[in-house]
Amino acid sequence: MFITFEGIDGSGKSTQARLLAEHLRASGHAVVLTREPGGSPGAEEIRRLVLEGDPDRWSAETEILLFTAARRDHLERVIEPALRAGKIVISDRFADSTRMYQGVSRGDLRGVVDKLHALMIGREPDLTFVIDMDPDLGLARARGRNGTEERFEDFGADLQRKMRAGFLALAAEFPDRCRVIDGNRPAEIVAAEVAAVADGALS
Amino acid sequence: MFITFEGIDGSGKSTQARLLAEHLRASGHAVVLTREPGGSPGAEEIRRLVLEGDPDRWSAETEILLFTAARRDHLERVIEPALRAGKIVISDRFADSTRMYQGVSRGDLRGVVDKLHALMIGREPDLTFVIDMDPDLGLARARGRNGTEERFEDFGADLQRKMRAGFLALAAEFPDRCRVIDGNRPAEIVAAEVAAVADGALS
Repeated sequence: MFITFEGIDGSGKSTQARLLAEHLRASGHAVVLTREPGGSPGAEEIRRLVLEGDPDRWSAETEILLFTAARRDHLERVIEPALRAGKIVISDRFADSTRMYQGVSRGDLRGVVDKLHALMIGREPDLTFVIDMDPDLGLARARGRNGTEERFEDFGADLQRKMRAGFLALAAEFPDRCRVIDGNRPAEIVAAEVAAVADGALS
Repeated sequence: MFITFEGIDGSGKSTQARLLAEHLRASGHAVVLTREPGGSPGAEEIRRLVLEGDPDRWSAETEILLFTAARRDHLERVIEPALRAGKIVISDRFADSTRMYQGVSRGDLRGVVDKLHALMIGREPDLTFVIDMDPDLGLARARGRNGTEERFEDFGADLQRKMRAGFLALAAEFPDRCRVIDGNRPAEIVAAEVAAVADGALS
């Protein structure tokens, strides 16, 4: 089973991905916890190429190609082998983030993102948790983190609101695999709901 | 006018691209001489990512995505602005090399290469010189060069023969823009034929 976590920056999805991995391991499952952009040695190198330096150094189109190259490497080297070995893969972000950040916020390129995904990636998660969060609270939490290289967080409150609406629309577009979780609650309450949904999907 | 040079390694296409640039400049044209993979600062960084390290570090599919990302950057930052300014652009390799090296030699991926090109690049050259060369001679010349990072040259004589046949088939596939030039002659003779064809196309 391939599970992804999506949502705006500061929504708590990385924490929730980790807590679900711990929960499933405690239940006896073999779990691979990974993240995007990155997740394999080659994809992490591409991540650095995209995220370091001047934010305008790449056009939206080039950025989509680089992230798709990173995703292809991550898929081939980490995700597919783990799934073939019967493990559960949990990824903090996957293709939905490209649909939102490159497909919506950097231009009207959702159609290009979808065609590229169909051509070079193909795979969708079995289950996607969209962690919904108040955009201003998410922004404050994201800005409070140290050592972040997520330059997308610098676009501010307008982007956060647009992305929150975008992720909710995406969840409505893919209702079979997406579950919206209210992230405006203590992490352990959110984690309990996520665990219950995952346990149900696995049983 | 957008002119490209294609052919196997050691065919002399880089020399011919440079000699044509000199000829056209001497005739009063503004010429931008560039190359792939690379050709813009961002594309050169992607080139290093692909060509350095273990040759098996990237799958053929990931490599196609990385070269397409580099081409998109090269097109946006160098080729299109120069063409808009009325300059002649001469590129040592372009999309035909990806059609051959990634589309043919690394797997049966020509269809993927073509779809990706249509989606993210679109542009074809106005004139392509395919420098035809005896594969064994080309290989000897390529191996004799110092400081090359062209790891594709390491695949040996079988690849050279396969690529030579591939480039000739490609020229037959795009007869309107491709001109096959016999590269098994002294460079100045080859250059004179190339210059005559280019002068004819420009007049």
